[in-house]
Amino acid sequence: MDRIRRNERLAAMTRILVESPNKILTLGTFCEMFGAAKSTLSEDIDILRGVFAQFHLGQLDTVTGAAGGVRYRPVPSAEDAHLWVKELAQMLSTPDRLLPGGFIYMADILAMPEQVERMGAVIAAQYYRAEPDFVLTMETKGIPIAMMTAKMLGVPMVIVRRDSKVYEGPAVNINYLSGSGGRVETMSLSRRAVKEGQRALIIDDFMRAGGTARGMVDMMREFSVTVVGVCVLAATQEPVRKRIDGVKSLLVIEGADENSSTISIRPSAWLTSAAEKSKA
Amino acid sequence: MDRIRRNERLAAMTRILVESPNKILTLGTFCEMFGAAKSTLSEDIDILRGVFAQFHLGQLDTVTGAAGGVRYRPVPSAEDAHLWVKELAQMLSTPDRLLPGGFIYMADILAMPEQVERMGAVIAAQYYRAEPDFVLTMETKGIPIAMMTAKMLGVPMVIVRRDSKVYEGPAVNINYLSGSGGRVETMSLSRRAVKEGQRALIIDDFMRAGGTARGMVDMMREFSVTVVGVCVLAATQEPVRKRIDGVKSLLVIEGADENSSTISIRPSAWLTSAAEKSKA
Repeated sequence: MDRIRRNERLAAMTRILVESPNKILTLGTFCEMFGAAKSTLSEDIDILRGVFAQFHLGQLDTVTGAAGGVRYRPVPSAEDAHLWVKELAQMLSTPDRLLPGGFIYMADILAMPEQVERMGAVIAAQYYRAEPDFVLTMETKGIPIAMMTAKMLGVPMVIVRRDSKVYEGPAVNINYLSGSGGRVETMSLSRRAVKEGQRALIIDDFMRAGGTARGMVDMMREFSVTVVGVCVLAATQEPVRKRIDGVKSLLVIEGADENSSTISIRPSAWLTSAAEKSKA
Repeated sequence: MDRIRRNERLAAMTRILVESPNKILTLGTFCEMFGAAKSTLSEDIDILRGVFAQFHLGQLDTVTGAAGGVRYRPVPSAEDAHLWVKELAQMLSTPDRLLPGGFIYMADILAMPEQVERMGAVIAAQYYRAEPDFVLTMETKGIPIAMMTAKMLGVPMVIVRRDSKVYEGPAVNINYLSGSGGRVETMSLSRRAVKEGQRALIIDDFMRAGGTARGMVDMMREFSVTVVGVCVLAATQEPVRKRIDGVKSLLVIEGADENSSTISIRPSAWLTSAAEKSKA
């Protein structure tokens, strides 16, 4: 094999690191791949760390110890995170998104890969320290966001179903209160989907009263799983008191009025204040 | 701003290109970002193209013309595609995946980001030339694969629902024959989800008789949308004649037998023969 230049190594390493967010890749892997010494690769990584920081492309960490190596996390800057979520708020605020009953049409944006990948990066950045083992969501609309968040966290996603399916095997079913009105519905999770003692991050697209998320928390209790966080793309301002505490949302829906054809959505306060603090 | 070295430019460009598969990024964008001349950037891209090819990291194309620029496609080599799908077949063949009724538990693998991203890359590679405007799937299990395929194709995903939802607005409902037994079920798609004259790629996780895919094709006809392809992760060998023609699958399920606790799954012939041809 021809000797590989630093130029080329840096490009290839970037491609490989970016593909596996939050996974620790050993220097040994790269030594073998490029036929280069560890000291050379350490220099490479120092260069990459600087480039990623300069162009706001995420965070590269060197992890020491026996299982050590290098780890990429696509953490956006506080300004970028705020800007992306603000753009999202604007996209969602156009009057033609207003549906009968004051609902807002979001299905298209929830399925645009580049938008959803950004949401995943913003959410994941809040939970790296909590070290979830998997991301839990309830079918259907939350799946893309949950998937991209799971990707950024380097963990699998688990989907709670509305009813048990033959192709998922024995399942645990629980009842929960859905919607502000409090209808009783059922959710189902395959027994083999998660293991006792694991840590779950709960993700959903939308929250009004929080009944569905509450149901997922209850479901995790049935499996003896610890919930490390609950995060949704958009939560309504009312009711202020949700059926569950400690929920994070990227967007706050202040109101949607059919009569005046107006939708009012803004980034959550924690995103705005982080961006302001970082500017100051 | 300090002068940015080629090293650093190549790493940053890689990160940016890989994040936006199948999107044409103009050289102008990069000129501005790095304060470099177009000729310099053209050289950069030549280097990147070589690196990507050497390490099987995908394909970098220069697109000429008014809307020209550079475009990244994560096309795996025929060998890699075959190897990945073979690994998948092995993962799915363990006897503990066998469920009552001869069903195979696949939910976990369908929600592992790194696996699903590979499936998306293998599928997308088959349809770049067909230029779909969106990827269509039916809830629930196919959503992650459809999402990652959409990402690799640089297009949005659209989800067909089992019934119409208030938060998706006016919808078109159709009936279709589900399962080999031929139960009549309903599927629903929001009227604003797709536009007349667009091109759809239909993706699903599993196909036995093909009734669901047939339903999606019929649904597209209602919207005057052209179907450019139908691709599933796994199709059963029987029935050989599906309710729809021209279906591609990555895996073929030859059989799953409860009595002998055996599952037989293999990569589809087109993947195997492409890998053999490329080796020869």
